[in-house]
Amino acid sequence: MKKQSIGIGLMGLGVIGGQVAKVLIDKADALAEQVGCPLVLRKVKVLPQDLTRPQAQAMDSQLFTTDADEFFATPEIDVFVEAIGGESPALEYLTRALSDSKHVVTANKEVIAKHGVELLTLAQQHGVGLHYEAAVGGGIPLISPFQRDLLANKISGIYAIINGTTNFILTRMARDGVDFPSALNRAQELGYAEANPRDDIEGIDAAYKLAILASLAFHSQVRPEDIYCEGISRLGSRDFQYARELGFAIKLLAIAKQSDESIEVRVHPVFIPEDSLLAKVDGVYNAVLVEGDLVGKVLFFGEGAGALPTSSAVIADIVAAAQDVILGIGSRAKWGAQPGKDIKPMSEIETRYYLRLNVADRPGVLAQISKVLGDHQISISSVIQKLVDSVAQTAEIVIMTHPAQEKAMQQALDELTHLTAVKEISNFVRVEA
Amino acid sequence: MKKQSIGIGLMGLGVIGGQVAKVLIDKADALAEQVGCPLVLRKVKVLPQDLTRPQAQAMDSQLFTTDADEFFATPEIDVFVEAIGGESPALEYLTRALSDSKHVVTANKEVIAKHGVELLTLAQQHGVGLHYEAAVGGGIPLISPFQRDLLANKISGIYAIINGTTNFILTRMARDGVDFPSALNRAQELGYAEANPRDDIEGIDAAYKLAILASLAFHSQVRPEDIYCEGISRLGSRDFQYARELGFAIKLLAIAKQSDESIEVRVHPVFIPEDSLLAKVDGVYNAVLVEGDLVGKVLFFGEGAGALPTSSAVIADIVAAAQDVILGIGSRAKWGAQPGKDIKPMSEIETRYYLRLNVADRPGVLAQISKVLGDHQISISSVIQKLVDSVAQTAEIVIMTHPAQEKAMQQALDELTHLTAVKEISNFVRVEA
Repeated sequence: MKKQSIGIGLMGLGVIGGQVAKVLIDKADALAEQVGCPLVLRKVKVLPQDLTRPQAQAMDSQLFTTDADEFFATPEIDVFVEAIGGESPALEYLTRALSDSKHVVTANKEVIAKHGVELLTLAQQHGVGLHYEAAVGGGIPLISPFQRDLLANKISGIYAIINGTTNFILTRMARDGVDFPSALNRAQELGYAEANPRDDIEGIDAAYKLAILASLAFHSQVRPEDIYCEGISRLGSRDFQYARELGFAIKLLAIAKQSDESIEVRVHPVFIPEDSLLAKVDGVYNAVLVEGDLVGKVLFFGEGAGALPTSSAVIADIVAAAQDVILGIGSRAKWGAQPGKDIKPMSEIETRYYLRLNVADRPGVLAQISKVLGDHQISISSVIQKLVDSVAQTAEIVIMTHPAQEKAMQQALDELTHLTAVKEISNFVRVEA
Repeated sequence: MKKQSIGIGLMGLGVIGGQVAKVLIDKADALAEQVGCPLVLRKVKVLPQDLTRPQAQAMDSQLFTTDADEFFATPEIDVFVEAIGGESPALEYLTRALSDSKHVVTANKEVIAKHGVELLTLAQQHGVGLHYEAAVGGGIPLISPFQRDLLANKISGIYAIINGTTNFILTRMARDGVDFPSALNRAQELGYAEANPRDDIEGIDAAYKLAILASLAFHSQVRPEDIYCEGISRLGSRDFQYARELGFAIKLLAIAKQSDESIEVRVHPVFIPEDSLLAKVDGVYNAVLVEGDLVGKVLFFGEGAGALPTSSAVIADIVAAAQDVILGIGSRAKWGAQPGKDIKPMSEIETRYYLRLNVADRPGVLAQISKVLGDHQISISSVIQKLVDSVAQTAEIVIMTHPAQEKAMQQALDELTHLTAVKEISNFVRVEA
C-alpha cells in the first residue's frame, strides 16, 4: 500500500522545535519530493509558554496540545520528533513513542548519552529506528559518518571541539588577552552562554557528546560518568600568553582513544600546536577530527549548535525515518550494546604537560623542581623563567615536559606544593601533539 | 528468505581493487557483523599484469578471470564493485551489471561525472543501487552527506580543494619558494603526480569531481564540459611571494555556486585569505566547504586519494549495498535528472582579481593602467610596485581589484597588452573572499 503522507508528531516548540516546524512547513514541497509523499505535521506537544512565540502564532492552533496523552493518542503519526531537551520528561516520551513502535527522531544529547543503549535496544525490539544526528554537533554530519561512511575503519582516536560556548570564550581569551570571567560575561551578553553556564564551562555538555561519539566509534558503551571531565575556568590570560610564546593554542578538547585493551575518554583544556587544523577552529564553530586505520585523518567542521543548523540534522533524520516507513524497514543503524571495553583510569593516561609555577626568586629553585619531576620519571622539554614581582622576590616558571604518566605528574604536583620555594602551582594543562 | 551470504564480484585488482580485496578478506568478521551475514568475494576480473601483485598472490587464483563474459556469468554475485578506473571498459561493465539488476559500487569519477545520470536512471529502472562515494575525495564522506545529511538545505556554494597532486605542488611552491616545474618534479618523484600529470595539473580531475558534487548538491545535471577549467602551471614563485605579502594563500579551487537563476561552476587557481580554513589545507589533503541555508558552513577534510582511504569509502558502499540486498530494496539515493539550470557563462562571473604586470619603469605608467581598468568599471583596491630590473628599466606592478566582471577584466587585459608601457601581463589570478 502506497503511503499518501507521513504524519509527524513534534514534541517541543521552543527554539529547535519551532525551527523544525518552520522548515517542515516552508520546505514542504522540496521535502515531499525527497520522501515521495508529503510530510504532514499532525500534532505538536507544547508548553503554555511556547504559544507566545512567533512560530506558534504562525501555525494552526488546532495542532497544539499541552496534554501528553492527547498527543500520543493522535492517529496517523508515523514519526515522533523530540525537541524538548533535558532528561525528563523527554526520556518518558521517547520510551512511550518507541514502545508504541513509532520511528523516533531526537536532538537530545543528554538522553542519548545517558540512555542511548536502552532506547536503541527498545527501538530494535519494536522494529523501528531511533535517529539522533542532531544530538551532536548541530548540522555537522557526525552520527551518520560513523554509522555508514567510516564503518570499515577501526577508529583509533577522536579529537573534538564540540562545545561552541567554551570555544567562543577561549577564542576571546586568546585574541583579546582577557581573563575568563570577562570572556564568559561577553559570551552571556551575546547569548552564546546561558545564565547558568555550568554544563558548558565544566565540560559536561562536551562529555555527553563524547559519550555518544565514542560509543558509536568504538562499538562499545561509553557512559558520561566514564569520562574524566575538567572545565576551562582555571585558565588565565597568562596561560594564553605562554601558549602563544611556545607555539600552541589552548582548546577544550573531547578526546577518545581506543587501544586493543582499553578506551580512554576525557574532556579537558589542552595545548595543541598552533599550526594544527583544530587550533584554527575559532569562535562558536565545532570540529571533530577522527583517525581510522583505513581513512587516516578526517575532519568535520561547522556550526555545532543553533536552531538553523540543528534543524538541518533533525529534518535529515525525519526524511530518513520517513523513507524507512515507506520502505517498511526498521533502522539499519546499529549501536553495539556490548558490555564495552575497560575504561582506562585517568591516572594511567600518558601525555605531555604544561606547568606554570609561582616560585621564590632565589638560586637553586629550578634545581629543586627538576629533582621532584625527575624523581617521578618526568623529563623536562623546555623552561621559561620570568621575574614577575621584584618586590615580593617571586618569579614565574613555565615548564613543558616530555610525555609522562598522569599518576606520576599528580604525585609530583603534590610534592611541589610542599616545597617552600614553590608559592603556588598556578596552572597545569595537558598537551596533545 | 534470509540470505546466507552476500556475493561480491570485483572488477580490477590494481591499487584500489587490491586494497578492497584485502579489506574484504582481513576484516571479514567485522563486516559480517555489520551486514548480518558474510561478504564473500566470488570472482575478480583481472588484467594479466594484476596477477603479479602481492595481493593477487595472497589470494585463491580460482577467483580470477581475465574474461568479462566468464566474470558476469558467475552465479551468486549480489554486488558488483568496479575499481578499474577510466571510461572504457568501465562504462560497459557498469552498464552490464546494472542491466542485469545487480547493485553496483564504483570508485570511478570519470564515468560518474560523464555518465552518472544515464547510469543512475538505469539503476532506478532495474530497481538497484549505484553507489559512488569513493569517486570523490577518497575516504572523506562527501556523496552521502549530500544524499542524506544536508538534504534539507538549499546549497548556495561549494569550495573544494579536491585534487591532492596540485595541492601538494602548490604547498611546496608556497613553502619552499620553488617554481612550478621543480615542484611538479618532486611530486612525481614521491609518486603524488603521474608521469603524465595533465589531468591533475590542468584541473580536469577536479572538474570531474566538481561535476559530481554540483549535480548532487544542486539537483541539476552539471557536466564536466560545463565547467570552466584552468590549471596551475602558469603560477610562478613570485605570485606566492606577493600572495603572502597581501595576506593570501594560493589554492586550486573547484567552485560551484547556485543562485535562483543559474549555476556557476569553475576550477582555477585562486587567492584565498591566509587565515581561512581552506588556506590551511596543505599537502595531499583535500577539503570541501559547503554552504547551505540551514547548516551554514560545513567543511569536510581528509586524504582525498590513496588505496587505504578509497577502500574505506568503497567498503562502506559495499556494506550499504549488501544491506539493501538483504532488505530487498533499491537505493534511496536520488540524483534528480532534471534538465538542469542554466550554467552561467564564465564571462558573467564576478570576482576580485590579482594582476601582476611587467611594465616600463617611467612616469605615468600606473596612470595609464588605472585608466584602462577604470574604463571597464574595474576599481583598484591596492597596488604594489617594485623595481625589478634597473638595467632594463622595467618594474613589476601588482594590482588587487575590487569585484569586477570577468568579461570586463578580459577586455581590460586585452587593452593592457596593447599599451607600449606594459611589457607583459605576467599573471592574473581570481580572488575568493
